[in-house]
Amino acid sequence: MHKSGSASSLGPGGLDLTQAFFKPIQQTAPPSPTKRHTKVSVIGVGNVGMAIAQTILTQDLVDELALVDVNADKLRGEMLDLQHAAAFLPRTKIHASVDYAITAGSDLCIVTAGARQIAGESRLNLLQRNVSLFSRIVPPLAKYSPDSILLIVSNPVDILTYVAWKLSGFPSNRVLGSGTNLDSSRFRFLIADHLDVNAQDVQAYIVGEHGDSSVALWSSISVGGVPVLSFLEKQQIAYEKETLENIHKAVIDSAYEVISLKGYTSWAIGYSAASLARSILRNQRRIHPVSVLAKGFYGIEGGDVFLSLPAQLGRGGILGVTNVHLTDEEAQRLRDSAKTILEVQNQLGL
Amino acid sequence: MHKSGSASSLGPGGLDLTQAFFKPIQQTAPPSPTKRHTKVSVIGVGNVGMAIAQTILTQDLVDELALVDVNADKLRGEMLDLQHAAAFLPRTKIHASVDYAITAGSDLCIVTAGARQIAGESRLNLLQRNVSLFSRIVPPLAKYSPDSILLIVSNPVDILTYVAWKLSGFPSNRVLGSGTNLDSSRFRFLIADHLDVNAQDVQAYIVGEHGDSSVALWSSISVGGVPVLSFLEKQQIAYEKETLENIHKAVIDSAYEVISLKGYTSWAIGYSAASLARSILRNQRRIHPVSVLAKGFYGIEGGDVFLSLPAQLGRGGILGVTNVHLTDEEAQRLRDSAKTILEVQNQLGL
Amino acid sequence: MHKSGSASSLGPGGLDLTQAFFKPIQQTAPPSPTKRHTKVSVIGVGNVGMAIAQTILTQDLVDELALVDVNADKLRGEMLDLQHAAAFLPRTKIHASVDYAITAGSDLCIVTAGARQIAGESRLNLLQRNVSLFSRIVPPLAKYSPDSILLIVSNPVDILTYVAWKLSGFPSNRVLGSGTNLDSSRFRFLIADHLDVNAQDVQAYIVGEHGDSSVALWSSISVGGVPVLSFLEKQQIAYEKETLENIHKAVIDSAYEVISLKGYTSWAIGYSAASLARSILRNQRRIHPVSVLAKGFYGIEGGDVFLSLPAQLGRGGILGVTNVHLTDEEAQRLRDSAKTILEVQNQLGL
Amino acid sequence: MHKSGSASSLGPGGLDLTQAFFKPIQQTAPPSPTKRHTKVSVIGVGNVGMAIAQTILTQDLVDELALVDVNADKLRGEMLDLQHAAAFLPRTKIHASVDYAITAGSDLCIVTAGARQIAGESRLNLLQRNVSLFSRIVPPLAKYSPDSILLIVSNPVDILTYVAWKLSGFPSNRVLGSGTNLDSSRFRFLIADHLDVNAQDVQAYIVGEHGDSSVALWSSISVGGVPVLSFLEKQQIAYEKETLENIHKAVIDSAYEVISLKGYTSWAIGYSAASLARSILRNQRRIHPVSVLAKGFYGIEGGDVFLSLPAQLGRGGILGVTNVHLTDEEAQRLRDSAKTILEVQNQLGL
Repeated sequence: MHKSGSASSLGPGGLDLTQAFFKPIQQTAPPSPTKRHTKVSVIGVGNVGMAIAQTILTQDLVDELALVDVNADKLRGEMLDLQHAAAFLPRTKIHASVDYAITAGSDLCIVTAGARQIAGESRLNLLQRNVSLFSRIVPPLAKYSPDSILLIVSNPVDILTYVAWKLSGFPSNRVLGSGTNLDSSRFRFLIADHLDVNAQDVQAYIVGEHGDSSVALWSSISVGGVPVLSFLEKQQIAYEKETLENIHKAVIDSAYEVISLKGYTSWAIGYSAASLARSILRNQRRIHPVSVLAKGFYGIEGGDVFLSLPAQLGRGGILGVTNVHLTDEEAQRLRDSAKTILEVQNQLGL
Repeated sequence: MHKSGSASSLGPGGLDLTQAFFKPIQQTAPPSPTKRHTKVSVIGVGNVGMAIAQTILTQDLVDELALVDVNADKLRGEMLDLQHAAAFLPRTKIHASVDYAITAGSDLCIVTAGARQIAGESRLNLLQRNVSLFSRIVPPLAKYSPDSILLIVSNPVDILTYVAWKLSGFPSNRVLGSGTNLDSSRFRFLIADHLDVNAQDVQAYIVGEHGDSSVALWSSISVGGVPVLSFLEKQQIAYEKETLENIHKAVIDSAYEVISLKGYTSWAIGYSAASLARSILRNQRRIHPVSVLAKGFYGIEGGDVFLSLPAQLGRGGILGVTNVHLTDEEAQRLRDSAKTILEVQNQLGL
Repeated sequence: MHKSGSASSLGPGGLDLTQAFFKPIQQTAPPSPTKRHTKVSVIGVGNVGMAIAQTILTQDLVDELALVDVNADKLRGEMLDLQHAAAFLPRTKIHASVDYAITAGSDLCIVTAGARQIAGESRLNLLQRNVSLFSRIVPPLAKYSPDSILLIVSNPVDILTYVAWKLSGFPSNRVLGSGTNLDSSRFRFLIADHLDVNAQDVQAYIVGEHGDSSVALWSSISVGGVPVLSFLEKQQIAYEKETLENIHKAVIDSAYEVISLKGYTSWAIGYSAASLARSILRNQRRIHPVSVLAKGFYGIEGGDVFLSLPAQLGRGGILGVTNVHLTDEEAQRLRDSAKTILEVQNQLGL
Repeated sequence: MHKSGSASSLGPGGLDLTQAFFKPIQQTAPPSPTKRHTKVSVIGVGNVGMAIAQTILTQDLVDELALVDVNADKLRGEMLDLQHAAAFLPRTKIHASVDYAITAGSDLCIVTAGARQIAGESRLNLLQRNVSLFSRIVPPLAKYSPDSILLIVSNPVDILTYVAWKLSGFPSNRVLGSGTNLDSSRFRFLIADHLDVNAQDVQAYIVGEHGDSSVALWSSISVGGVPVLSFLEKQQIAYEKETLENIHKAVIDSAYEVISLKGYTSWAIGYSAASLARSILRNQRRIHPVSVLAKGFYGIEGGDVFLSLPAQLGRGGILGVTNVHLTDEEAQRLRDSAKTILEVQNQLGL
C-alpha cells in the first residue's frame, strides 16, 4: 500500500539522520498555529487537471499542492513524476490521495473531474451523472476546507458551477467557473495574431455561456488602448465586421478543433486556470471573464444561473462584476442563454 | 491544408488593418540581419516532447519554438493548444510543421522522437529502427541549423546521442544526451525527502549509463555543504550504507514505477530538459550530469562512447567535464558500462 | 589600478585550477563566432542608472551588463556590489569601466548620464552642457555597437533623444527616449488606486512632451476593457471630469513631489526602463508611450522633433506608432509642444 | 499631513465611481477573517532598507509591504517611487508611516535602521546608542506582530540580533541576523570567478562573527559536488592554500572596499536579505549561514550569544542548525569570537 504524500519507504533511518544533521537552537518555541501557507487542491488528474497542477507548480504559486482522483495508481504516478523534478523547482509539498482529507485547509480547490459521454447518452443523462459525481466531490471539499474558494473547470462549466455552489453551501463569491476566461484568451490571441501585436496589449472579452452561444463584446475590444470599432469607423476603413465575426467563430471552433486534432485540450486551460489561481491567491484584483452567479445583471432574472461576466478576483474570491456596457442585442443573448441554462437546471432537481 | 506556424486563416484583412493601426516613423531602416533571437526546436510531440516544450514556454526561455513530428494533426493540435494561452504568457513565436525547414536557425534542437518496442522485438532490432528514425531526423536538423546544439532525450539515450553525433557531423561539444540529469534529480529528491531538506541544498550525482547500470557517486553527496559520508563516519553513526543504497535502487526503479502507474513519464523529464536548455541558452556554465563523449575519461578507451559525466554547460555546449574523484570500483563500473555500450554500437554499423 | 570587468586579483592560480577541475571532451570545436548573447550597457551609474541596471539584473533580462561612467571609483563600487550577489542570481557577466570599449556588441545602450543644473544657470546653458556631454557619450557607443538600439533616459528626454539620434547617425527606429512611459505608469497607478483595481487592468496613455505640457489621452482610458469616458456618459454619472484632471495634474506633480521628498527619483524609472528593455530585447511587440521621431504624425511638421507617442517595440527598435485618435485640442497641444521644442533645438546648432 | 498608505488625495470621487464600476454578485459573504496574505515590514528606508524592499518587490515575494522610518518625507518619497511602478509589477499593497501600527500582522520584520558613528565616538558608545534605537523599534514590532519573525540587518549584526531577541521576548527561533549570508555569497562569487563557474554551483560557508573575525569553512567548499580541498590533495596540485586564504581576505575586505568606493553597500545586502525572506516566507527549508543563538554549539558556553551558523530556514524561522564539521582551530576561533562578543554584551546591561 502506498503512503499518501510521501515518496519514501526507506525505513526508519530518516529521522535519526535528520536529528544528527540538524540540531535545534536553544529557547525555541513551536511555530504559531496561525502560520499559514498557500495550498491548492486539484480534483481529477486527467490531462486538464495535470496541466493545471503542473503550470501552478512551474509558476511557483503555492506552498502545497494536493491531488485527488479515484484512480490511485494514476494519482501516485503523477505525484511522483512531479516530485522527481524537485531539484529543478522551489520546494513545494505535493500530496496525492484518493482521500479528501489531504485537501484540508486549501485556499483554492480546482475541480476538473467529469464524467465522459457514453455513446448514445443524452446530454441530460450525462449531466445527471456529473451532478452525481459532484455530490461525491464537493461536500468533502467544503467539509475539509470550509473557507476555500471553489474553481470549477469541468464541463458544462456554467451548470456545474451552479451545482458546486448548491452542494457546497458556500456564499456565491467563493464559487466560480473557469467559464470564458480561456475563450477570451483565444480571442485575444487571434486578434493579436491578425494584427501582429502582443496578445497582452489586446483587450477583448467573450462572456456568457461557455460554448457555442458565447457572446463577444465587440465594443470592449481595444488594442494598445485604441478602441477597435470606433477606430475603424473614424478611419472610415471599409473593414468587414465579417473578419471580427470570423475570429469569434474561430474561437468557438477552436476547442473542437484542438480536440479533433490531439484528442483533448490541456495546455491552454492549464495556463488559464493558473492565471485565475494567481489572481485569487495573490489578491491581484484583476478582471477575468469567469462564470459567476449572474442573477440581477443585464436583466437576468428567473433563477440562480451562472454565466461568465468580467469579474474582479482576489483573496475573497469574486470581488465584483464589471459594469460593461452591452448592446441590447448582446444583453438579449445573455438572457436567452440564461433561460436555456435555467431550463436544464430545473430538470436536475437540486 | 494547414498553414504551418500560423493559427490564422481569416482572409487578407490582417495586413490592411495592421497598416492602418501602426504607422512607421520616418528615416527608419530595416533591422540588422545579425539581430538574433533565441530559438529551440523540439522533435517529437509525444508526452515527453510536449512536457519539454510547455515547460520551456512557461519558463520564458525562448523567443521562438518550433515543433516537428510526423503526425501533422497532433502537431497542429499541440501548437494551437499552446498558442491559445497567448494572453497568459510573454509573446513567443510558436511554429509546427512536418517540414524541418521551420527549425532553421535553431540555437538548440531537442530530439524526443523514438520508435516504440514491438511485442517480441529484440533490443537490437528496436535500436536499429531508432537509428533509422534518427537518420531521417538528425541530418535535416544539422542542415537547417549547422551551428545548433543537439540535445538527445530519446532512449536508449547514450547510444542514440552517439548516433546523433555521428549523423550530424557536429563537434562533440555540441551533442549531448539528457542522460542521468533526471536520475540525479530523483536522487536528490529522495535524499532531501529523507532528511526533510530542500533538494536544491542536496548535491548528489548519478553518472554513467542512463538506466540500471548507473553509478551513484557516494563521495560527492553533500547536504548544505556537509559531505554526507564523512559526516556519518565522524559522527560514528551506526548508519546503514544500506539506506543510501536503497535510495539509489529507488532512483533506478522510479522511472519504471512511474511508467507502470501512469503509463509514461513526462513532467520530470520536461523540467530536466528545460534546466539543461536554460544552462545552454543563457550561458550559465552550470554543471549537470549529461551524456557526453566519454572516451579518455576514467580509463575509458576502445572507441567513441557516450556516458553521463558532470559537465559544465553554456552557449558553446559542453564546456568541460568536472574532474570528480571516483573510487576504483566506481571507475571500473563506468568502464564496464562503456564496454557494453560499445559492443552494441559496433553492431549498428555506423 | 583596477582591472575592469573582473573582481579578481588573486594571482595566476585560477587558470591552473580551472584546468585541473574541468577537462575538455575530445573532438570538440570552438563555439561559432555567430553565437550571440544579450548585452545591455548603462551609461551613468547615478541613482537612475543603477536602479535600471539592478532591475534588469533582478529580472534576468541579459547575459552581459556593462556599466560606464566617468567616476572610476563609484563605477567599481557599484560593479562589486552587484557581483557580490552572484550566489542569489542567475549568472550574468557584469563589467564596469570608464572606457567605452566594454560596451562593444551591445544590443541596447541606455543613457542616464546628465549634467546637473548650476545655481543661476539658464535652461539653455544647461542643455548645451548636456549636448556637449552627449557628444562624448553617443559617438563611442555608436562606434562600438553600430547595430544597437539607443534608449535615452536623461532629461530633457525629448531633446536629448533628438541629440542622440543626430550624434549617432542611426536610423530613427533605433533611437528612442523613455519619454512618458513612466508618466503613463503613474497615471495608471493613480487611476487604479482611485478605483481599487489592478494597474495592469488600466489602459491609459500620457503622450507628448515629457513634463508639464504632457497630454493625457482621455479617450484611451479603459479599465478592464470598459472605456471610462463613455461609461461615465452612459451611466449619466455626475462625475467631475475634474477628478480625472486632478489625476493628470498629480502625475505631472509626482516627479517633483518625489524629488522634493527623497531628493531624486529612481525605482519607478528603473522599472520603466527595464520594461522597455524587455519589450525590445525579447521582441515582445508591446506598445509603450516613448519618445520617437514624431514628424509627420498629427500634423507635426517643420523639423525633426521627438515626442512620446504609443509605439510598438521589438528587436528592431520602434516597429511603428499606434494610430490613436486624438481630439483636435489634443493634437493642437502636441503641435504646440513640438514647436516649442523645435525652437530650442534650433538654438543648439546641431 | 500625509495619508499613510495611500497616494491619493483626489477627493471623495473614488468610492462612487468604484461602486458604479463594480457591482457585487448576490448571496455573497465577507471574506473569512482567517484569510491571510504575506506581509513584510522594513524598518529604516536608507540605502540598505530600500534595496531590500525593492528587491523583495521585484521578486514578487509579498502581498503587502510596510515601510517605517523616522523621516516622514523620505518615507513618503520612497513609497511613492515604488508605487509609481505599479503598471510594471504584480499588485502589492505598499504602506509607509512613522507609526508602527502599519506593521500589524507582519510575517517578517526586517530591521535595517542603525545609528551612524560620530567622529571620535567609541564603539561601545555607538553600540549603546543602537541599543537605545532598538528599544524604540523592537517592542512596537513585537506588539503589532507577535507571531512574526525578526530579521536584523543593522550592524554590528550579531550583538544587535541578541538585543532584538531580548527586547522582543520572542523564542530564539524567531529572531535571526543576516550575519554572514552575504559574506558567504561574496566568497562563492570570488571562488566562482576564479574558476569560471556558476556561483550557484559553489558550496562555501563563512560562519562566526560578521566582520573581520569571520571563519571560512575550508572543508565545506565544493564546486559542482567536488570537495575542493580533498580534490587538491588527490590531484597533488602544488596549489597554494594561500590563494584560498587570499579569497577569504578579499571577502573580509570587500565590504570596506565597496564602502570606500561608493560610500555604502546596498545591492548585495538587498539580494541577500531577499533570499532569506524567500526561504522563510515560502517555507523553503533552505540552509543559510545566519546569526542565531549559538550557545551550546561547538562548545560555546558562558552566555547567550548570536553568531552565524548554517541554519535551515522556513515559516517557523530557524528550523535547526546544520551539524557541520569544524576543525579544532575553526571551533576555537568561533569560541573566541563568542567570548569577545559576550564581553561587549555584558557591558550593555540588558
